[in-house]
Amino acid sequence: MTDTPETDAPLDPVLSQVLDRLDSDLDAALERLMALLRIPSISTDPAYRAECDAAADWMVADLASIGFDASKRRTPGHPMVVAHGGEGGPHLLFYGHYDVQPVDPLDLWDRPPFEPEVQDGPRGRVIRGRGAADDKGQLMTFVEAMRAWVAVHGQLPCRITILLEGEEESGSPSLVPFLKANAEELGADLAMICDTTMFSGGVPAITTQLRGMLREELVLTAATKDLHSGMFGGLARNPIHVLARILADLHDDAGRVTLAGFYDGVPELPDEIRAQWQNLAFDHTAFLGDVGLSVPAGEMDRTPLEQLWSRPTAEVNGITGGYGGAGFKTVLPAKASAKVSFRLVGTQDPEAIHHAFVDHVNARLPRDVTAEFPMGDGAPASHMPTDAPAFEAARQALGAEWGKPAAFIGSGGSIPIAGHFQDVLGMDSMLIGFGRDDDQIHSPNEKYDLQSFHKGMRSWARVLAALT
Amino acid sequence: MTDTPETDAPLDPVLSQVLDRLDSDLDAALERLMALLRIPSISTDPAYRAECDAAADWMVADLASIGFDASKRRTPGHPMVVAHGGEGGPHLLFYGHYDVQPVDPLDLWDRPPFEPEVQDGPRGRVIRGRGAADDKGQLMTFVEAMRAWVAVHGQLPCRITILLEGEEESGSPSLVPFLKANAEELGADLAMICDTTMFSGGVPAITTQLRGMLREELVLTAATKDLHSGMFGGLARNPIHVLARILADLHDDAGRVTLAGFYDGVPELPDEIRAQWQNLAFDHTAFLGDVGLSVPAGEMDRTPLEQLWSRPTAEVNGITGGYGGAGFKTVLPAKASAKVSFRLVGTQDPEAIHHAFVDHVNARLPRDVTAEFPMGDGAPASHMPTDAPAFEAARQALGAEWGKPAAFIGSGGSIPIAGHFQDVLGMDSMLIGFGRDDDQIHSPNEKYDLQSFHKGMRSWARVLAALT
Repeated sequence: MTDTPETDAPLDPVLSQVLDRLDSDLDAALERLMALLRIPSISTDPAYRAECDAAADWMVADLASIGFDASKRRTPGHPMVVAHGGEGGPHLLFYGHYDVQPVDPLDLWDRPPFEPEVQDGPRGRVIRGRGAADDKGQLMTFVEAMRAWVAVHGQLPCRITILLEGEEESGSPSLVPFLKANAEELGADLAMICDTTMFSGGVPAITTQLRGMLREELVLTAATKDLHSGMFGGLARNPIHVLARILADLHDDAGRVTLAGFYDGVPELPDEIRAQWQNLAFDHTAFLGDVGLSVPAGEMDRTPLEQLWSRPTAEVNGITGGYGGAGFKTVLPAKASAKVSFRLVGTQDPEAIHHAFVDHVNARLPRDVTAEFPMGDGAPASHMPTDAPAFEAARQALGAEWGKPAAFIGSGGSIPIAGHFQDVLGMDSMLIGFGRDDDQIHSPNEKYDLQSFHKGMRSWARVLAALT
Repeated sequence: MTDTPETDAPLDPVLSQVLDRLDSDLDAALERLMALLRIPSISTDPAYRAECDAAADWMVADLASIGFDASKRRTPGHPMVVAHGGEGGPHLLFYGHYDVQPVDPLDLWDRPPFEPEVQDGPRGRVIRGRGAADDKGQLMTFVEAMRAWVAVHGQLPCRITILLEGEEESGSPSLVPFLKANAEELGADLAMICDTTMFSGGVPAITTQLRGMLREELVLTAATKDLHSGMFGGLARNPIHVLARILADLHDDAGRVTLAGFYDGVPELPDEIRAQWQNLAFDHTAFLGDVGLSVPAGEMDRTPLEQLWSRPTAEVNGITGGYGGAGFKTVLPAKASAKVSFRLVGTQDPEAIHHAFVDHVNARLPRDVTAEFPMGDGAPASHMPTDAPAFEAARQALGAEWGKPAAFIGSGGSIPIAGHFQDVLGMDSMLIGFGRDDDQIHSPNEKYDLQSFHKGMRSWARVLAALT
């Protein structure tokens, strides 16, 4: 084992043919991805229900064309796609999601979000469109690797199950019940999850620390209807004021979250991880500078990489109340609401933090204001077993493809699926993805580097060869 | 002079014929108002520009049909309607506004807001529709009184000028320049403004204290685009957090506004006004109970009527930031904004308070967040000369119509026009209106009591007779 990628080692001829096939088939692979990107499968908005269904149908048809036994499986929400193929070797479960984020604010997009296009960018060509990086472009990297393997060798390299979800961007309400109901069918030796980024500068990475997430919606109601602020202002309670106080009090002046017991279960970073992260020489000035910022805004006594990867957070993701249109309306609104998410680390307990949030709100509610919490769901943080041999084998395979040693990294994002695979199926996960920090996922003008798409497929072919 | 209304006094035969005519013509008057209410003249939304113009045209045609020399007058915004008629006696300027508030949230309306209807209500029949009370129904009370006077007597009782504005609900940007440019034409002995309410319980009222208003829009910008809270959360600045802090800090725990110098120029209530207001026996429990509230929310050391009529306020009328749609989106938004209005009393200076607000915001801006103030306009509070003989004459006339002594009252609302008439034209204003506290102006399901419409016309006929 060494940190030097083995680019000079002679290639396994079996793998070599698959890589060649991926190179020669790239244009066709791109066409397939474009077709998938044109389906506006926004899972969080009920108006796009039929489109989510259409995306699932597209995936079933595509996987069947490779030879998988693929089917669309009903859930109370959007359907799952499950596919089985191959035999022998380790049984690998590949996970991705075919749903995408909403596209608003639409006027900030340079082109219609569901009319994808390959464009020239400052760092090479990119695939522009909603879902290009999160997660349709990513999941198609492993699908294309499998397609090429079958095309060249007539069969998959091992037993493979694919699980594609349609509710990842809307809280995955059907996921755990579906895993429980189909535990025997879905249980495998190892899960491969493709929904993460590389480290900056094109360093390939396996994400081994994931923050968990608790999502809360808070709706405050004061009067039974909107009031005229001239007739009632000064006497009637304004719920926006109450909401502002509740949200302002979520952090103290040093950037710490104030909820009671919030930091219970938050571990200090082990010395070896701290040392490894220092070696990554993360340039927070450049990272923030890319989006017009300059100073870290989190806990003042933590390094920028700790703030991003290993510290818990509380962020208000949306706030609404009163008149938001053009011009002015001197309304005293009946309601005000906010969406708040907490990123969790270590053994922080989503349930306990939910209760602490409810207590925080209730302690700041004056008479005449009621609070509702219409949505609250959470998943704890995950930590991967980096000492398992498969992790080192995959790390070497990635290094060979990209010409740089691969890193075990943390991630600020939350991919609750890894925790659920562990809890429900007793299965470890390996998180490998080819996204970039500037992909603008969840934002206007999302893109996926064409290089990520191409070398991503090749990476999966190498990982499959290394694990089988 | 007495507080007993002179209902038993024999009626002037000239007035008597006009009142009879108003009674017999009521159905036709209602049809005219319905036609005006069907025009969706929302001034604050540029999408309704043509409709505002159509409402002005309707008013010009209607006033011309009474014999007025009426015209639509261009401004940089929505047009003014100016009409001249009659001669001799005092020169009276009547003011109203033909524009209306936006209608959102539309789903809370029981019927389309611009398809008005007369409905049976718990306290008699009401005219339901946007603008019924604010201000189309009110302005038509004086128009109908004049129409009846001309129908019966062939001419108006005195020289009358009518000024109808189309930007009252959007900050009246064209008003002061128009008054200045047409000062000679519009200057009169006294202005009659019909845009206020009666006191509760059907007590007629002349509003003699009006709060002023400062309106502020605040837009905070952090990153150059919306960010993924998983990738950036904890490290990148969230402008919603900054906005929450700014707004939460606008009031202290006792309900006082914290802006530096905010209470400069706020007078204590004179003893005689305090005594008069105590006699009004305002039932704040019933007032708040009507809208589902129970406790006064303003300055803790002030009576409810002081909070409503004579104390300054700061209210957030709207707040927007991040994702506000259905479901959840873990975005870290680039922008967050709020609309804030301040009601002003005494000699509070809108300009000084604007600067104090800007200072308050800037003192709470971390690095990487910029603040813009795209809109800020203000007008100081107004106080009417209640010792002028015309005020007592009008008060007697109102008492005669309604069978209850009329009151000189304060108002929480802001009608900057009275201040502008004083400042630009050197003219006092008398504010008489027939709205009710439950009219739901600026809210869904706005209505105007049919009694207010009918007795309102009759009141104006009596006031015209008393002043000429």
